[in-house]
Amino acid sequence: MKDPKFDLLAIGNAIVDVLAQTDEAFIEHQQKMNGMVKGSMTLIDEMRAVELYGQMPPGIESSGGSAGNTIAGFASFGGKGAYIGKVAQDQLGDVFRHDLKAQGVVFNTQPLAIGAPTARCLILVTPDGQRTMNTYLGAAVELSQIDIDEDLVSSAKITYMEGYLFDPPQAKEAFRVASELAHKAGRKVALSLSDPFCVNRHREDFQVFVENHVDILFANEHEAMSLYETSNFEETVDALKGVCEIIVITRSAQGSVIIAGDKIIEVPAEPVSKVVDTTGAGDQYAAGFLYGYTRGNSLDVCGRLASMAAAEVISHMGPRPNMKYADFLKRAAA
Amino acid sequence: MKDPKFDLLAIGNAIVDVLAQTDEAFIEHQQKMNGMVKGSMTLIDEMRAVELYGQMPPGIESSGGSAGNTIAGFASFGGKGAYIGKVAQDQLGDVFRHDLKAQGVVFNTQPLAIGAPTARCLILVTPDGQRTMNTYLGAAVELSQIDIDEDLVSSAKITYMEGYLFDPPQAKEAFRVASELAHKAGRKVALSLSDPFCVNRHREDFQVFVENHVDILFANEHEAMSLYETSNFEETVDALKGVCEIIVITRSAQGSVIIAGDKIIEVPAEPVSKVVDTTGAGDQYAAGFLYGYTRGNSLDVCGRLASMAAAEVISHMGPRPNMKYADFLKRAAA
Repeated sequence: MKDPKFDLLAIGNAIVDVLAQTDEAFIEHQQKMNGMVKGSMTLIDEMRAVELYGQMPPGIESSGGSAGNTIAGFASFGGKGAYIGKVAQDQLGDVFRHDLKAQGVVFNTQPLAIGAPTARCLILVTPDGQRTMNTYLGAAVELSQIDIDEDLVSSAKITYMEGYLFDPPQAKEAFRVASELAHKAGRKVALSLSDPFCVNRHREDFQVFVENHVDILFANEHEAMSLYETSNFEETVDALKGVCEIIVITRSAQGSVIIAGDKIIEVPAEPVSKVVDTTGAGDQYAAGFLYGYTRGNSLDVCGRLASMAAAEVISHMGPRPNMKYADFLKRAAA
Repeated sequence: MKDPKFDLLAIGNAIVDVLAQTDEAFIEHQQKMNGMVKGSMTLIDEMRAVELYGQMPPGIESSGGSAGNTIAGFASFGGKGAYIGKVAQDQLGDVFRHDLKAQGVVFNTQPLAIGAPTARCLILVTPDGQRTMNTYLGAAVELSQIDIDEDLVSSAKITYMEGYLFDPPQAKEAFRVASELAHKAGRKVALSLSDPFCVNRHREDFQVFVENHVDILFANEHEAMSLYETSNFEETVDALKGVCEIIVITRSAQGSVIIAGDKIIEVPAEPVSKVVDTTGAGDQYAAGFLYGYTRGNSLDVCGRLASMAAAEVISHMGPRPNMKYADFLKRAAA
């Protein structure tokens, strides 16, 4: 087996975030009128995206997308990363591309020349720091197996994919292809379940995929419960045990649990003085964990790095690092 | 004279900011190679904009432009505002338009249909909170006197313009037209000098304009010194005294000085626990001052509102309010 060129390849919906601070009343109104669910991700079409944007307060734009955020955080730790995802040939696509390349991530997926614009996610951040996401997938739905570069997959220690990719049908197929290529090359496959509603929408597909293709699984408590429709945390841990080599369940302020075979490791959450915006918390958790893992650290250290990155990203607006995560390394090993 | 429909009309270069955190070494290198000047604004062309963007760290995008920032802050206080500025018909133009409208500002300038893209300012923020700006004016240079809506100018208590508009030649002419229309309607004209290098580039034009058309002048210490080439603060105050009805000179942490006839009022700076990003400090100072002024407050109260808004905006990344400035009103009057 050749030495891997990349530590991590991330595949995801390439999205630019539009973040705005709103009050609870705005979310409640949208919930009543448009079925928005606080704290979750709702898929919206272009018309609805225009409508909601017109109703939203002023925003800031920031590159996002779950796997995009993870690979940016991973590179910030010092890891060698690559990304596959579909933007359009437009200004937001340029922004997305710039922000990954500037972080040192290799990103060469052909942009969509004609058709939908670059995907955007309208994110409403409430005073409690919770984010409610509304995603117009745009060009991202055009990601297909043609975009899965075999050499790239074969040359990465781990191929990491976001569960959100189960929404666009072509991407789901690309997903399967990528995991087969990775395993053929003797590499590992990691998956984040992304969102409990996304798991609901594709539960059986997720179960089959997790059981047959995934080595490292990331899920928050709600997503994990949704996968096998369990009703409490203990039941969920029992249901997931042994399904993959490593299963990580995050529990917000209650920290996280790493399940590896019969071993269960509890990782405390890193303290945060003020939660400003939880966007990217799970993504940066995965970044920290996978960085630790690809560098051969113990699962405890992986968990600590993960918690530190998650704590950093929720202390400011936006889903990507505001500092160099490489600075965490000494502290986590201490 | 009809009752004004708007408290403030702002005219400026319509720009989307790209903010990135960099170290001092990055600025020093750019200074040596490309003549970038720390803390100032440099005009760049499209090629240089592409080159510099390619070298910059990941950024966040945020609507900007000096007068755009001021009118956004003004509206955040609760003032009725309108804006004139030129964006292109592109994604960044949509962002700029959205962010003003979402703040309650009326903005109906016809976008540029063909030609240059929406202007952007590549802003490098160093660990000391200083911002160094690199502006590609793009569509903004196409602002001309056709865009100066006479009804709008006549129906605003004050027409406020940024000195940066002296750079695009057509805009300079639009500027003169706007101030004549304002005075014809019995309204007032306010000007911000924007940048000492911009004053250098157009010193005589600025002098003529200030002496003949401006009622309220905003300048920081360096810009004020540049206008009449004075060499210390006392000399500058003497040179400016009586040139306009009101002259405001800002001095960063040393507060500001308001000159009205023979009266000189010193306003202390509002304390800030940590200066994160000085982008927008002068713009929000003007917003606070003009809000107080249009509501008939004493110059002391105008100065306090100004200092509070400036202190808020330098405590976070980005040039526009992160909170409702209306909350300052009670504190300033106390």
